[in-house]
Amino acid sequence: MASAGNQTKELEKDKASFVQLCNPNIATLKEDVLYHFGLSTSTHDLPAMFGDVKFVCVGGSPSRMKAFIKYVSSELGLGRPGEDHPNICAGTDRYAMFKAGPVLSVSHGMGVPSIAIMLHELFKLLYHARCSGVTVIRIGTSGGIGLEPGSVVITRQSVDARFKPEFEQVVLGKRVVRRTDLDEQLVRELSECAEGLREFTTVVGNTMCTLDFYEGQGRLDGALCCYTEAEKQAYLQAAHTAGVRNIEMESSVFAAMCSACGLRAAVVCVTLLDRLEGDQIRSPHEVLAEYQQRPQRLVGHFIRKCLAGA
Amino acid sequence: MASAGNQTKELEKDKASFVQLCNPNIATLKEDVLYHFGLSTSTHDLPAMFGDVKFVCVGGSPSRMKAFIKYVSSELGLGRPGEDHPNICAGTDRYAMFKAGPVLSVSHGMGVPSIAIMLHELFKLLYHARCSGVTVIRIGTSGGIGLEPGSVVITRQSVDARFKPEFEQVVLGKRVVRRTDLDEQLVRELSECAEGLREFTTVVGNTMCTLDFYEGQGRLDGALCCYTEAEKQAYLQAAHTAGVRNIEMESSVFAAMCSACGLRAAVVCVTLLDRLEGDQIRSPHEVLAEYQQRPQRLVGHFIRKCLAGA
Repeated sequence: MASAGNQTKELEKDKASFVQLCNPNIATLKEDVLYHFGLSTSTHDLPAMFGDVKFVCVGGSPSRMKAFIKYVSSELGLGRPGEDHPNICAGTDRYAMFKAGPVLSVSHGMGVPSIAIMLHELFKLLYHARCSGVTVIRIGTSGGIGLEPGSVVITRQSVDARFKPEFEQVVLGKRVVRRTDLDEQLVRELSECAEGLREFTTVVGNTMCTLDFYEGQGRLDGALCCYTEAEKQAYLQAAHTAGVRNIEMESSVFAAMCSACGLRAAVVCVTLLDRLEGDQIRSPHEVLAEYQQRPQRLVGHFIRKCLAGA
Repeated sequence: MASAGNQTKELEKDKASFVQLCNPNIATLKEDVLYHFGLSTSTHDLPAMFGDVKFVCVGGSPSRMKAFIKYVSSELGLGRPGEDHPNICAGTDRYAMFKAGPVLSVSHGMGVPSIAIMLHELFKLLYHARCSGVTVIRIGTSGGIGLEPGSVVITRQSVDARFKPEFEQVVLGKRVVRRTDLDEQLVRELSECAEGLREFTTVVGNTMCTLDFYEGQGRLDGALCCYTEAEKQAYLQAAHTAGVRNIEMESSVFAAMCSACGLRAAVVCVTLLDRLEGDQIRSPHEVLAEYQQRPQRLVGHFIRKCLAGA
């Protein structure tokens, strides 16, 4: 339990850490339609619905994010036993969103553009709801490099396909490059949680974010492929030398946008295969299902520790 | 009805137009797991399931693609009345896939990476199923430039955020640029169908494909925005001058990949708003729902004509 002094300190920290947008236009909008969530400031009371959110966990698959809210809700005693968690974005099939107490769980689909749309609308939602002291964690799947399948990687730096910690996008026809910094302290806290759990191998390493799953990650089994096995291996080895331990498709814009809006953020992904050994994901369904629970267990444990210490 | 001579000609054309992959490795695989479809060559008889496919329609939203298969099935008399169309990819929630006779309807999520994963696995599926004479059409939603909302755009060329007909990706750390050609004859055929229908405004124009919905399309209402209304308008006007009539997020890689694999392809998108007038999609739900049926009606009409002439 926290002392009264600690609680006051936390409240002050919270006040200083209201979610900030990098866009002065939003404050002047009469109505803000969060189109891909099927929510709007004129039809939904966002402060009442989301004002208490402190942890947002995001991941590609809607069913996995529903499983996560059930898991944290029951493990952390956040709701009534057997309580259902309806999809808050039921008016659209672009994303799914679930809530239990201070935890929000949102799906983001696959790839940088898909997660970027979601993050724009999520940050506006948190802003309109006047949330403060929010931590955002991506819990995902990835391909590992030189790791036993099922290992979990906590991302130190998200790097691009040339191993640079940068996210490049085109704004009004011009290239804009943003940094992909993640919160170092949060990496340490999550790493300590993994050590406490001792349930599976967890490493801290760089995560390569690509715009394609097949050619973009050097796979030999896409519909298109114009390089050899040797060239693929050389590329993956170069990535490993640059500190890359896993490859996925969302971390760069996630890190860049969270950092731009002052949100504490982390990326925790399980590796479904070792890309040095192959390209296809062939493990049995039950094995993959268990792997996918690992980031959930680690982040659930982290949230429990935070709530106990609050 | 076609004459016997025409039918023979069609069969010969079909033989010459088996779906081709640009990857010699696939023919040598013992098993090919189409991971994001939840299908595999060792667990599913792909030629029996998909061998008769001639039209593949793809779109972002799973529910819209389910609505499309219901629509073409009933309009074209492809199935028994009231027949259900189960999701062929029910084992995963990454994509949804439905089939009625020679028509396959597949969702692809939002953005270039999401549709690219789907297309890699779709083309491998069509190859394993030994399909021939396949036409692929994206039916989607978009933002218009200088068009009344609800107008339908048939894409002449897919262009990037600098209005070039190119798709750039990174393969083994190196930039690769591919052309984004679409089938000119198919554009004409679809345009004729629209003239025959006379149900809504349809234009042929260039389609700009971006990697982001907010900053990437010059919106002023994202979580981040570092430009003015005047700069936005100048950019959209420059796009209009370059022949761009709508903006979406998948056409470039769709055109590049279909072209690389020799598939006849088209992009037909409805515009949900005029971006010269604003950024937010504020039309009532029923209006937007009717707009979204327009590409379905046009492409349904096109498929009917093709089947009647076959």
